[in-house]
Amino acid sequence: MDKVDKKSRLPLYCQLADIIKEKIATGQWTQHTRLPPERELCELYEVSRATVRQAMQDLEVNGYIYKEHGRGTFVKPAKIRQDLLGFYSFTEEMRKLGKTPSSQVVNFTVENCSGKIAKKMNLKPGEKVYKFTRLRLADGEPMMLETTYIPHEKFPGITGEKLEKNPLYEVLTNEHGVSLTMAEERFFPVLTREKEAEILQNLPHSPSMMIERLTYSGHLLVEYTVGIARGDKFEYRVVFE
Amino acid sequence: MDKVDKKSRLPLYCQLADIIKEKIATGQWTQHTRLPPERELCELYEVSRATVRQAMQDLEVNGYIYKEHGRGTFVKPAKIRQDLLGFYSFTEEMRKLGKTPSSQVVNFTVENCSGKIAKKMNLKPGEKVYKFTRLRLADGEPMMLETTYIPHEKFPGITGEKLEKNPLYEVLTNEHGVSLTMAEERFFPVLTREKEAEILQNLPHSPSMMIERLTYSGHLLVEYTVGIARGDKFEYRVVFE
Repeated sequence: MDKVDKKSRLPLYCQLADIIKEKIATGQWTQHTRLPPERELCELYEVSRATVRQAMQDLEVNGYIYKEHGRGTFVKPAKIRQDLLGFYSFTEEMRKLGKTPSSQVVNFTVENCSGKIAKKMNLKPGEKVYKFTRLRLADGEPMMLETTYIPHEKFPGITGEKLEKNPLYEVLTNEHGVSLTMAEERFFPVLTREKEAEILQNLPHSPSMMIERLTYSGHLLVEYTVGIARGDKFEYRVVFE
Repeated sequence: MDKVDKKSRLPLYCQLADIIKEKIATGQWTQHTRLPPERELCELYEVSRATVRQAMQDLEVNGYIYKEHGRGTFVKPAKIRQDLLGFYSFTEEMRKLGKTPSSQVVNFTVENCSGKIAKKMNLKPGEKVYKFTRLRLADGEPMMLETTYIPHEKFPGITGEKLEKNPLYEVLTNEHGVSLTMAEERFFPVLTREKEAEILQNLPHSPSMMIERLTYSGHLLVEYTVGIARGDKFEYRVVFE
């Protein structure tokens, strides 16, 4: 399996990318290992430089390797596994993993909701909602960008400052006596837009996970969040028994 | 919300794409509705043709619209929602939705497993496994491309012909007395490779969902499947209570 098959229908660059993924998956190349230089990979696998470059691009955009200018190409640390089994708190999940979570409130407004948001949140179009965007970081590294809508009337007194210092669910629980009873999450893959990539310090047009979440306290909708999580940082897991 | 804001930091094409998504989300534009032609969108939203084209590209690659050569651009049907709550059977899920499922076995071999597969499946490197790739279709339309590995020794007699006619789990249950007790699924976003896009009749480099599944019968690993699901066709949902 350590050679490309020039007769295969699978393009050479895909085969080479798969060989390198195999080395990472089996632990032959561990995180932050420097990859051999391009010309060495060409010789080793008897492929052209164009093939090596295309393989590297495939691996980079899909989050297996990273480049450091002037230093070379390295194996990226494994993705963070997020189990889908309860109310998702970024803060708690990162703490469990021994990482220091933080949030930057990029944007905070109170506005009249659009038709789309009204429909999602079962409000009347034009009802007042908080709308805020938070960049979620782990050990100072951008991981996720989330925009949250909360009905304004039901939850007075939320501010951007509070949200930088406290997890949202703590604010809602402690100041508004909410207890979360149900959440619905939807996942689908998207391409990171330039603006998002800039904030997330990720490659534009790389694959990311879009996550929509509706959280309820009894019949009351507490939040609607649309977030984009870096595809090179997260994977989602679910177990059935 | 029906106008672009030229002072906003959000690029104009993103704003225009969001306006169109809003029209789709609120049902103003239903599936297969033809979008106004480019020049009309330019006038309507007071943006350049380049902006309209970029917005259209963003919407197309993320699965909101489709183009028909010479006929125009149309709203794509909503994504198929897949609930994450049990053993996933493509056949059953499609039937539930009133669609006719079918499978094409693109590839079928018995081979010595690689180090990566051995590690995933807890086998010895070189142990014999079935390896087959199935294209899964709904109403004749390609939806998903799955490569499955099954330990050969434990499950003799599986053939490509059987798999075209019967769901895998039926073959395993009926012919091998297996009862599925546990499954683990992992999800992450990737870009569709050219070869996959060709088979899936999808755009290359569009976002797709990579799904890895390990299924067990007691302590026995029954299957390891790696699949790619069209990002414009599926979304995944999970509910916590």
